[in-house]
Amino acid sequence: MQHSYALVASRLKVAIRASEYAVGERLPSVRELAATHGVSVSTATRCYRELEREGYAEARYKSGMYVADWKALHQARRGAPAAVATPVRMEYDQLASLQHRMTQLYALTAQPLPLALHLASAAPEWYPGDALARIAQRHLRRDPLALGAYPSGTGLPAFKAELIAHLATCGIDAAPEDVLITNGATEAMQIALRSVAKPGDTIVVESPVYFGLLQTIENLGLRALEVPCVPGQGLSLEALEYALEHHGGVRAVVAMPSFQNPLGDCMPEAAKQRLLKIVRRHDLTLIEDDVFGDLGHKTNRPPAVKAWDRDGRVIYCGSCSKSMAPAFRVGWVLGGRRHRQLESQKISSSLAAPLLEQQVLADYMKSGKLPAHLRKLRARLASVVPLAQDCVRQHFPAGTRVRGPDGGWWLWLELPDQTDTLALLRTAVQHGIAYTPGTLFSASGKYGHCLRLNIARPWSPAMAAGLRALGEAARRSGTQEPTMQ
Amino acid sequence: MQHSYALVASRLKVAIRASEYAVGERLPSVRELAATHGVSVSTATRCYRELEREGYAEARYKSGMYVADWKALHQARRGAPAAVATPVRMEYDQLASLQHRMTQLYALTAQPLPLALHLASAAPEWYPGDALARIAQRHLRRDPLALGAYPSGTGLPAFKAELIAHLATCGIDAAPEDVLITNGATEAMQIALRSVAKPGDTIVVESPVYFGLLQTIENLGLRALEVPCVPGQGLSLEALEYALEHHGGVRAVVAMPSFQNPLGDCMPEAAKQRLLKIVRRHDLTLIEDDVFGDLGHKTNRPPAVKAWDRDGRVIYCGSCSKSMAPAFRVGWVLGGRRHRQLESQKISSSLAAPLLEQQVLADYMKSGKLPAHLRKLRARLASVVPLAQDCVRQHFPAGTRVRGPDGGWWLWLELPDQTDTLALLRTAVQHGIAYTPGTLFSASGKYGHCLRLNIARPWSPAMAAGLRALGEAARRSGTQEPTMQ
Repeated sequence: MQHSYALVASRLKVAIRASEYAVGERLPSVRELAATHGVSVSTATRCYRELEREGYAEARYKSGMYVADWKALHQARRGAPAAVATPVRMEYDQLASLQHRMTQLYALTAQPLPLALHLASAAPEWYPGDALARIAQRHLRRDPLALGAYPSGTGLPAFKAELIAHLATCGIDAAPEDVLITNGATEAMQIALRSVAKPGDTIVVESPVYFGLLQTIENLGLRALEVPCVPGQGLSLEALEYALEHHGGVRAVVAMPSFQNPLGDCMPEAAKQRLLKIVRRHDLTLIEDDVFGDLGHKTNRPPAVKAWDRDGRVIYCGSCSKSMAPAFRVGWVLGGRRHRQLESQKISSSLAAPLLEQQVLADYMKSGKLPAHLRKLRARLASVVPLAQDCVRQHFPAGTRVRGPDGGWWLWLELPDQTDTLALLRTAVQHGIAYTPGTLFSASGKYGHCLRLNIARPWSPAMAAGLRALGEAARRSGTQEPTMQ
Repeated sequence: MQHSYALVASRLKVAIRASEYAVGERLPSVRELAATHGVSVSTATRCYRELEREGYAEARYKSGMYVADWKALHQARRGAPAAVATPVRMEYDQLASLQHRMTQLYALTAQPLPLALHLASAAPEWYPGDALARIAQRHLRRDPLALGAYPSGTGLPAFKAELIAHLATCGIDAAPEDVLITNGATEAMQIALRSVAKPGDTIVVESPVYFGLLQTIENLGLRALEVPCVPGQGLSLEALEYALEHHGGVRAVVAMPSFQNPLGDCMPEAAKQRLLKIVRRHDLTLIEDDVFGDLGHKTNRPPAVKAWDRDGRVIYCGSCSKSMAPAFRVGWVLGGRRHRQLESQKISSSLAAPLLEQQVLADYMKSGKLPAHLRKLRARLASVVPLAQDCVRQHFPAGTRVRGPDGGWWLWLELPDQTDTLALLRTAVQHGIAYTPGTLFSASGKYGHCLRLNIARPWSPAMAAGLRALGEAARRSGTQEPTMQ
């Protein structure tokens, strides 16, 4: 017969493992636990002692028992891979800590570095700067008076027309009144989130996830529920279904089904359709972030989930920042059934997008040069990836995993479990190389042994030497006690 | 001795006049009223009948009694001026109705019109388009690769440096880390509001007020408390003090102390200082919208309230859209003690402002041409105002009031009380002239007999003829039963 403390402890463990109590959440008081399970206070106390011993709970001084970061602990003990079994809800104190980690990154990378591999765009010379500048000059010469009038709030019609033609390449069939031009995809995402959720609501995000999204969610007073990705497959649909059945208050799923940031995975088409079905069954909105959609390394442009959206529940966000011109800050959003709300939110958010950039993109796209530019950019990305992967395999500590992305330019490295990539960044910066520490890609600070590299630049001896130096620093850090910052 | 129904009715009237019950708010049920005042249900019923008769309450089918728009009714009866005695809190259904009125305006003015006097900028040829275009061309020629990198999230340092020098002209002493570049003043306002208030909180605004602000407040889930302006003085500080003493949940005051939109008034310096004291005493934030600050018709640039801000409780918002280049969409915000929060909100809102526009503004300001341009623009505005005023006095119905603005380009007309300027707009558009109906400048739809004209264009026979046609249409509409739309 089990002791009653073990029975209660086992029930609590099941609840914690199923994320009924999230990491960092306060557990019932000893008295509440005793009352709920009909055991004595001393049995309830013994139960918590057992959970503490096993790493599921931790006492906080004068405050009670809280769920400990048991996954990290269990992984560290087992040396298991970083994939997370169950969804984790982001807590407010975790976000404060995320902001702190971001500040550390910004402080460390404030100086210009020869290998700034934490930045979010490709090498400047891989963008069609000359062609865009020529078009801009033509507009400025012909019609300088245009600078003296407000642009249309929903976007320049000529640009929208070109964009609609381009969106057809990923299967989206849109009319001008379905499209709203924004100040980059960040604004598209911000107004999309505001149109579906109010403070306190929960948004499902992929894990690992672009930290900017976590910050936006936090700044809107929303909560993120991190659902793990399956390597090579994108968002785990099994984990998503589990999350939606076990967590209330979810309003939307934000996902990058084509070339996820940071993993670079593209969901298979069948999975994209299944994702839409799940979202529909739970009567949610899917916010599809497709900023890397044009940057697949294979020839075909993968379809967007939006291509299958028949009832307007996909809000589709895109941008010229990754594919054409990072300095332009022009994005777009197709709001589906929420489009009128988004138009109003956009006017309140920043009135209109700047005119000249829209004129330039319209003419550039109309000139027919975009497909050739994208082909070249994709070929360049595809050619650099294996070189960078080889370099990592050669110089990084044994056990380092590196996957080639299906598209985009991120290389996601899982180093041995004990590596602290935030501490390692200090050394890296001294070698003139920066990356984004993995701990930024989750509110709960998982992925502390991972890192993300931007490999979108011409391959060079300097790049090879930089990666080698980084790998060697990682090896050295593995032989010491990791520095806790 | 008073009948008890009259006593209860009188108490309710006092409460309604003191805005304890706002216009549109549901009043207690007959039973509740009877119980509260210890009278019979029939007495309570009679009391409501009395309030209905006097225009303070209205019955809604199957829903109960609500506070009627008693001020408008009372004014119409008395023929009193539009100034409102007490603050009015914006209600959600009023906002739906404001959005509806805005939609009507947009639909009516969708076609290009020869006299689009509802637009928000000066004539394109009054902006330095040529100079700005030349600078832009130089940058594009010299460094097209710059388009291939993200701009800094807080703004281009060279532009911030010039801006800081310019802000000194209104008494503001700022360092680069105090300034954040935004996508226009609309974004500055949006992130300022988000940094001080959460949904459900109340923001004090001027009445009449720029409708875009009401829309932003609505879209953020906030509530607006409209506090009247005193003609020629700006926000009524007496009404503000009254409002702050009688309404809870106020987080901030948004004001345009220099050249208010739509009235064009500049608060005297002593009033600006008193405003800051009131805000400080109530431990609130002042969000100062200074987009027209550079456009005073007299020679001196009036100081911003921010100039006296010693404890960082003024969030100062500005923009190049009114004074330099509407198409650029570049604004700025100085967040005071909330500046770090604003930086984070800005990154979540739209990451960064576009690069080229900031480079151009930096060089233009550095060239020393801005003061001469502003002098010329102000002189042009000052010369047009009396011509437009004379034209209004000559052709509009007797009793029309028109005040010359102290700065900016808005002419605010109060027509005779029975005029419906939203209905009149249909006729005006047929004559090729558009304006903004007064009803848009208040959530509760006050100012239905007022209108706002943009007079910032070269004076011409066409302009004179347009204003005459508008005045004559207003005269004709005054002799008929007003059309209710």
